[in-house]
Amino acid sequence: MPKSENPNPLIQNRLLAALPGKVYEQFASELEFVPLALGDVLYEAGKPIADIYFPNDGMVSLTSTEDSNAIIEIGVIGSEGMVGIAAFLGGGQMPNRAIVQISGSAMRICAEQFNNGFLSDAGVQKSLLRYTQALMTQISQTAVCNRIHSLEARFTRWLLLSHDRAASDEFMLTQEFIAYMLGASRQSVSEAASRLQDANLIYYVRGKITILDRAKIESATCNCYRIVKDEFNRLSV
Amino acid sequence: MPKSENPNPLIQNRLLAALPGKVYEQFASELEFVPLALGDVLYEAGKPIADIYFPNDGMVSLTSTEDSNAIIEIGVIGSEGMVGIAAFLGGGQMPNRAIVQISGSAMRICAEQFNNGFLSDAGVQKSLLRYTQALMTQISQTAVCNRIHSLEARFTRWLLLSHDRAASDEFMLTQEFIAYMLGASRQSVSEAASRLQDANLIYYVRGKITILDRAKIESATCNCYRIVKDEFNRLSV
Repeated sequence: MPKSENPNPLIQNRLLAALPGKVYEQFASELEFVPLALGDVLYEAGKPIADIYFPNDGMVSLTSTEDSNAIIEIGVIGSEGMVGIAAFLGGGQMPNRAIVQISGSAMRICAEQFNNGFLSDAGVQKSLLRYTQALMTQISQTAVCNRIHSLEARFTRWLLLSHDRAASDEFMLTQEFIAYMLGASRQSVSEAASRLQDANLIYYVRGKITILDRAKIESATCNCYRIVKDEFNRLSV
Repeated sequence: MPKSENPNPLIQNRLLAALPGKVYEQFASELEFVPLALGDVLYEAGKPIADIYFPNDGMVSLTSTEDSNAIIEIGVIGSEGMVGIAAFLGGGQMPNRAIVQISGSAMRICAEQFNNGFLSDAGVQKSLLRYTQALMTQISQTAVCNRIHSLEARFTRWLLLSHDRAASDEFMLTQEFIAYMLGASRQSVSEAASRLQDANLIYYVRGKITILDRAKIESATCNCYRIVKDEFNRLSV
């Protein structure tokens, strides 16, 4: 949604900001501001989701935990979305984990209040359904990208997703963490990072990534980033 | 859902069968029985979804079409689900294609009738939300499996998904089609099929797969199949 359409410009989360003012006012007292620290687990795989988070900034990663040797990222959530969609969909839990990957803050509401009050508004429901579709597109494109695209394409796609959600051009991401997320070896991530650095796309030292040339990164990545971005724009989330 | 709980035992699609009888009766006249032939495209990427399909049997594949050199499957739908979830979620279209992979039949309703009538029932909404979560889990696990598991694991997982939805132990799937779906070369699919045939798990000749030993295939596959199956069971879809 273009920023000028935001009826609540002080609210950073776009799902909350898109609510009509009177609807937001109704729920505002139930929302609590909480910091999101790197590594915080917002919900655990197979455990009831107690709280819903609407990030103001930062990035939360949805990761599969089925194989103890591999943590694979299936989607990311920032200020465009919400963490804990299973509370809305009715399953109450997910077979994946939500973990903070770039620190920030969020508005938190307990799942019970969310379900009993928040969801009764038709506008909220509609907004969350559209967000669900956008998130589903993101996860679908991850399935495609994970199968057919090179590590360099996947890495740059992931840099763009992170950059969109980080508040700055610099963010902390260790090579080990990147390797986990992308399902690649540390060695191959290190080599890919070096190539991107040699081409002046990023600067990467001691776990801190600096985005040097966003346009070049967009040129270097696969079409998956654009497909998802276009769908989020089309669905106004 | 255990079959004994099915209030409408003559209805083969499980989402429709789970509806309370009076709700189903209300919509029954809007549902039209249609055959699903191998290769039928039920909706096209980026085009408005005109009709919703509730398969009675057979299997529909959701495929990405973003790269003309690669068609990758992101999920499958059989009698447990519906084709055209974007009509429910509000986006009205998807950036993927729905194509019949195993022939069968479905109950069809036009998207407009679906949205205007069908969706107004709270029970229908609840059921579709839970199905959405289950489908999202399936797509998520495809993203994981596509990244970290061997072709043989992915192939056997896919055989199980197909077998669950096929009405028999035999179904038609050409090697070329399997290679497309799994994002692998025909040569590697051919080799994997030979290994499964040598181990007496399947019999595969002229595009016809016969499941010989379901239990052995379940033992040979990765955990992804079970995670998704458990989640569909938990969500009663």
